[in-house]
Amino acid sequence: MIPGIRNGLQARREAVDGELRRLLPAGPSSLHEAVRYAVLSGGKRFRPLLLLCAGEGFGADGAELLPFGCAVELIHNYSLVHDDLPSMDNDDFRRGLPSCHKAYGEAVALLAGDGLLNLAFEVMADAPAPGGRPDRKERAIREIGRASGSRGMILGQWMDICIPAADMTAAVFEEIMRLKTGALITAAVKAGAILAGASDPALEALEEYGRHVGQAFQIRDDIMDAGAGAGKKASGPNCVHFYGREESVRSLREHVEAAAAALRRVPCAIPELECLASDLALR
Amino acid sequence: MIPGIRNGLQARREAVDGELRRLLPAGPSSLHEAVRYAVLSGGKRFRPLLLLCAGEGFGADGAELLPFGCAVELIHNYSLVHDDLPSMDNDDFRRGLPSCHKAYGEAVALLAGDGLLNLAFEVMADAPAPGGRPDRKERAIREIGRASGSRGMILGQWMDICIPAADMTAAVFEEIMRLKTGALITAAVKAGAILAGASDPALEALEEYGRHVGQAFQIRDDIMDAGAGAGKKASGPNCVHFYGREESVRSLREHVEAAAAALRRVPCAIPELECLASDLALR
Repeated sequence: MIPGIRNGLQARREAVDGELRRLLPAGPSSLHEAVRYAVLSGGKRFRPLLLLCAGEGFGADGAELLPFGCAVELIHNYSLVHDDLPSMDNDDFRRGLPSCHKAYGEAVALLAGDGLLNLAFEVMADAPAPGGRPDRKERAIREIGRASGSRGMILGQWMDICIPAADMTAAVFEEIMRLKTGALITAAVKAGAILAGASDPALEALEEYGRHVGQAFQIRDDIMDAGAGAGKKASGPNCVHFYGREESVRSLREHVEAAAAALRRVPCAIPELECLASDLALR
Repeated sequence: MIPGIRNGLQARREAVDGELRRLLPAGPSSLHEAVRYAVLSGGKRFRPLLLLCAGEGFGADGAELLPFGCAVELIHNYSLVHDDLPSMDNDDFRRGLPSCHKAYGEAVALLAGDGLLNLAFEVMADAPAPGGRPDRKERAIREIGRASGSRGMILGQWMDICIPAADMTAAVFEEIMRLKTGALITAAVKAGAILAGASDPALEALEEYGRHVGQAFQIRDDIMDAGAGAGKKASGPNCVHFYGREESVRSLREHVEAAAAALRRVPCAIPELECLASDLALR
């Protein structure tokens, strides 16, 4: 069964990439080049997969979910482009390539990020309502918009950059992880299920799954970053520096297990979501 | 009649300001302070007025239109915050006060701009559909999203910044004005009328009105800027430098007249839109 699930995930990944290529503007300007560069030069499409698998698990049609999965990926990518800018994390590399502003200059990267955020909402507005249910579509857009906004992901990035090291308590650190990484991941899972008409108790279980997956995702990232040594510049607080490696590894395992436990409370079995969570564990 | 119209415009302006104050996040963070500073420290609310007057002119309820007017104003204000950044126009002042990044730093201003753009779409997603018509709401959001995106306003800003002076032909210059200023202004007028269920011929007439108002608005701004002398830094190409003052004044008058002519093709009289256009003329 697992190979079938993996093939299914890979097929969805390719569908997302194909749809992103179609959605992104393709003019002769360096703006449109930068927009495509930022999105199409790699990326695991983790958030779209969460949205698609959650939605399909509850019976929605994958093709109808696709624009919403792409929208979440566009939001994720805009945030990377802006976070990499010199006034923010000042990262010269992203996915092994020059970051967007290194390739196209700061002004173009700033505008490309703006364009990606705008496009995410354009794509959702343009998309037909899955299952012919505009009410669910609207609720999903609200869920995603709240998660990415200035009370969600943007607030998390602000905390990451603006809270002085002396004030970085464990509670603050957890809140940053929850907002900066967890909010959009959780919204992706929930939006898929909302579009499929999942019940409120199911959405609550998925929210818990998303929260743990978000934490696990960030901790894993931090462990990888800390292990990459001097070649990788640390940007913002890192779990490993904060709690130590051993504690981080333990915490990662616990979040992966908690995600699986939350998933068992969902009324239908969604092995793809189980697989996406367990893949975050260290081997 | 004119004093009544002016009072009505002022009342709508105050309603927009009140609603914006309510919609903007009010946390203890400098992020939320910067967001409020960017929006609440002035502004003529020209675009919301266009949306409200067009929609009310076609019979929609002003209170139901208000969130959409605010959304357009949020988009306009995000674009000002980002355009003022050092990597873009590098403007230290806005509306006679330090620009957002001068008051809060570049990172916070960048995030505040992101937050405003995101909030615009959140506000529209949250708003009840005027007249109980979700189809019209969706169409209005699409109209606004297309105008503000990387084939509209953002492309205009890219052209403004990235096209070298040697390539700045009259055609390119007109295209920049159309995209950078005209697109969102036209979308505001049209979105109001769309929400009210205006017919396609009426929308076409309003589109022409919006196009001329957008041109007039930008030319007037350029004439004011050029007249402000050494105290005001020129950012980007200016109509007066391009065509000369006399020709700019003539062109402004022609666009105001053409806007009024387009308005006469709209099936219902909307004296507020006439007033907003004629106020752009130089006295």
